[in-house]
Amino acid sequence: MWELRSASFWRAIFAEFFATLFYVFFGLGASLRWAPGPLHVLQVALAFGLALATLVQAVGHISGAHVNPAVTFAFLVGSQMSLLRAICYVVAQLLGAVAGAAVLYSVTPPAVRGNLALNTLHPGVSVGQATIVEIFLTLQFVLCIFATYDERRNGRLGSVALAVGFSLTLGHLFGMYYTGAGMNPARSFAPAILTRNFTNHWVYWVGPVIGAGLGSLLYDFLLFPRLKSVSERLSILKGTRPSESNGQPEVTGEPVELKTQAL
Amino acid sequence: MWELRSASFWRAIFAEFFATLFYVFFGLGASLRWAPGPLHVLQVALAFGLALATLVQAVGHISGAHVNPAVTFAFLVGSQMSLLRAICYVVAQLLGAVAGAAVLYSVTPPAVRGNLALNTLHPGVSVGQATIVEIFLTLQFVLCIFATYDERRNGRLGSVALAVGFSLTLGHLFGMYYTGAGMNPARSFAPAILTRNFTNHWVYWVGPVIGAGLGSLLYDFLLFPRLKSVSERLSILKGTRPSESNGQPEVTGEPVELKTQAL
Amino acid sequence: MWELRSASFWRAIFAEFFATLFYVFFGLGASLRWAPGPLHVLQVALAFGLALATLVQAVGHISGAHVNPAVTFAFLVGSQMSLLRAICYVVAQLLGAVAGAAVLYSVTPPAVRGNLALNTLHPGVSVGQATIVEIFLTLQFVLCIFATYDERRNGRLGSVALAVGFSLTLGHLFGMYYTGAGMNPARSFAPAILTRNFTNHWVYWVGPVIGAGLGSLLYDFLLFPRLKSVSERLSILKGTRPSESNGQPEVTGEPVELKTQAL
Amino acid sequence: MWELRSASFWRAIFAEFFATLFYVFFGLGASLRWAPGPLHVLQVALAFGLALATLVQAVGHISGAHVNPAVTFAFLVGSQMSLLRAICYVVAQLLGAVAGAAVLYSVTPPAVRGNLALNTLHPGVSVGQATIVEIFLTLQFVLCIFATYDERRNGRLGSVALAVGFSLTLGHLFGMYYTGAGMNPARSFAPAILTRNFTNHWVYWVGPVIGAGLGSLLYDFLLFPRLKSVSERLSILKGTRPSESNGQPEVTGEPVELKTQAL
Repeated sequence: MWELRSASFWRAIFAEFFATLFYVFFGLGASLRWAPGPLHVLQVALAFGLALATLVQAVGHISGAHVNPAVTFAFLVGSQMSLLRAICYVVAQLLGAVAGAAVLYSVTPPAVRGNLALNTLHPGVSVGQATIVEIFLTLQFVLCIFATYDERRNGRLGSVALAVGFSLTLGHLFGMYYTGAGMNPARSFAPAILTRNFTNHWVYWVGPVIGAGLGSLLYDFLLFPRLKSVSERLSILKGTRPSESNGQPEVTGEPVELKTQAL
Repeated sequence: MWELRSASFWRAIFAEFFATLFYVFFGLGASLRWAPGPLHVLQVALAFGLALATLVQAVGHISGAHVNPAVTFAFLVGSQMSLLRAICYVVAQLLGAVAGAAVLYSVTPPAVRGNLALNTLHPGVSVGQATIVEIFLTLQFVLCIFATYDERRNGRLGSVALAVGFSLTLGHLFGMYYTGAGMNPARSFAPAILTRNFTNHWVYWVGPVIGAGLGSLLYDFLLFPRLKSVSERLSILKGTRPSESNGQPEVTGEPVELKTQAL
Repeated sequence: MWELRSASFWRAIFAEFFATLFYVFFGLGASLRWAPGPLHVLQVALAFGLALATLVQAVGHISGAHVNPAVTFAFLVGSQMSLLRAICYVVAQLLGAVAGAAVLYSVTPPAVRGNLALNTLHPGVSVGQATIVEIFLTLQFVLCIFATYDERRNGRLGSVALAVGFSLTLGHLFGMYYTGAGMNPARSFAPAILTRNFTNHWVYWVGPVIGAGLGSLLYDFLLFPRLKSVSERLSILKGTRPSESNGQPEVTGEPVELKTQAL
Repeated sequence: MWELRSASFWRAIFAEFFATLFYVFFGLGASLRWAPGPLHVLQVALAFGLALATLVQAVGHISGAHVNPAVTFAFLVGSQMSLLRAICYVVAQLLGAVAGAAVLYSVTPPAVRGNLALNTLHPGVSVGQATIVEIFLTLQFVLCIFATYDERRNGRLGSVALAVGFSLTLGHLFGMYYTGAGMNPARSFAPAILTRNFTNHWVYWVGPVIGAGLGSLLYDFLLFPRLKSVSERLSILKGTRPSESNGQPEVTGEPVELKTQAL
């Protein structure tokens, strides 16, 4: 429980709340229909991707900018963060998502609100197909995050934020037709609770969580294995041993200490 | 007042004038309607974002490429520049914006000019809602700028210019439906003065300035604090102590000295 | 045959299978027609480009993320990998492509499947013209890959993944009108085998393979030559001498060893 | 005349020919109209930008990837290359552009060729206005190139290729409505000679050349000055003293020597 006494831990929790609020506010908001006609899929997909890219840029060094319970679950499976931290992240993400959708609701004309960009299945897609689609969408996304955040790499990786954001955009370019592209239980949960419509809502939890878990196992054990013993993994999950990365692409430690050193 | 005797200070002022001229010229110009039909939101949002990205790339090392009184205000609140420099920046930005709109006016066929892409509220959006929207748009933008320009970071940040430009694009993808997406009082001011239409114009000052101030406080005091004493902050604001960054992503000092060293 | 005893070799083969599965799944899936009207060329072109970018980011350090028999052929011509490795890559790519198209088929409503985004010639384009177009599309793509993966460069190259992905997007922006933009025999092969339609299928093998071979020769011998003797080249092709790069942008060796060193 | 005996000089000339061929082939090709309806401005603007980005990535370290007589003129004004080299570049660019347009002509169905994406003035735009627009388009473009290629910078500049490509896209998002967006005399020249239509053709030489010259002077003398004496500048122009950069973002010297050192 030493983490609870660390200022950087609480900054991370706040960052997740705040970033998920913005993710949902901008993502759902850019999906609203102001005029009749077909949905502009590319525009919505870029809005989600650039929202994530902006948030990874803004708070990636503070919390990792997961803004997504499935991503936090993936880092837990990869034993890169403690169970306590993961639970706090998910709570903060869900609260942030609902807050973001509520703000969006309050600033949007009633005629435009619709179902607040609720994730729904295409009429021709079964729940089984939808779950498989959500698994695939999240699997590529989590693989991209794990490979991009991997501190063992030293190549020309460019911007962490754009890599992760464009992977999310890719998922939306494909998935919006099938399931509305959830890929993030917090994003799916927020409009469901505001519109009190939980039809097939479980698909948007089960699919992303399975995809994220598979992605984590695939990357960390098969594609580019890490040699961590079981006891190491367990002590990170229990929080008795600090993780090196905490699910963040950049480890900065205490910003104040950095500043002190510079003086 | 020692700053007034520095050539790099005047180069920065000129860069702000010049860059805001281009920002307004390209941003407003790409928003004009050459044919009937719905506005192409994605195209306009990318034009604004790529205009900012290009200008940050071109003069970010000279002035920081704020091209925006709200951004300059944020750096003032974060005591990263002197009050004198901030005032000169804002004057240069406003003059540059009006000059850019005037050039645009002169090269555009009268039938196409319209209201020169004046920012207006959607009929269903109240001024209160519009102000909240402008606050949120500018808040994420300033957070992204502060995190991207932060010299304490060392991760895989990619291009400063693209990170900041895509955050502006994100704001437009959401905000164009609500308020036309101001996010920049100079951009809103220029068409207002040319078309002499100041209806609800205060929204485009109050919203961005509040959002920028909040973003600055949030990043510098809460999310990733800097340890500067009040006296340090005051002496930077008064200009008796130079700021390390001057609101720029890259500190190059005098280009001429660099050259001399290389010889 | 020493390569067959290396774990990283088999990880690379699996990565190619897996990445090509995803490439075809996302690329073809984003090309399906859910509503009447013209194909949204920009959207499809970005989906292919971002799919490749995401996969290069995710497995570029494991296999090079060729996901394309023509690209593997180019690295073979440049003697950057052994013949054995190249053959295994191509087999894995073809199997992965068919698996990806099969998964796509199974999750897609029958009314939407159409011809699974089969590559076809525009009615006004002859097979000769189509072959030339495919040569040009693949030539620029392979040149970009070779220049981006080149370990001799040290400039501001940014993200390997985005550079390569946007070059693929460029090819689609041009080529979709002429040939549907193959540029990748595995991508063209998968829908052909599922729909049992091999009309003009050879164009999508001959064009990309010629373009890739030309690109490799042009870059490695003319534009930016490498001094490798014929015997060096032959021993790399035979696998008796390891290649430095193996057609990858980033040489990480055994991830486990890296980890061991870090302990 | 020592340059004429250098292999890297002739590689650079060939790279300019070859890259301009591809620039014109892909840029004009993506601008053709395969179906009635309004031109998809964003798609064309991205095609030009990604074409340039891909070519800068592919041959930027060989010739600088100017692919544009106006850009070469700017580097000549900045005395970053010899007059001999500049003349050879421009000849190679013009020949490459015509070759690219000719290949495009030969692979395109007659009904689609139209005027081969010839640059024309919008009926409501005068030649004076068009020239001013071309000056502004090229001015921001050359400023971005000079700032991005500047070897004195050390900030987070990201990819040279994307920065320059997106600046070109910006120019097209604005300029396509006014003048078709030339910004490059070689690009304008190629369809003019194939369609034998030189109406207002001088605008596409005078505008870009003035804009490029202004951009060069503005960056090198005012915004971020270089201390070069007049005699230094003259000897670089005459070719008696080698330029450090030769108008390239990355100085690699002889690739073969690099290889030799590595052995």
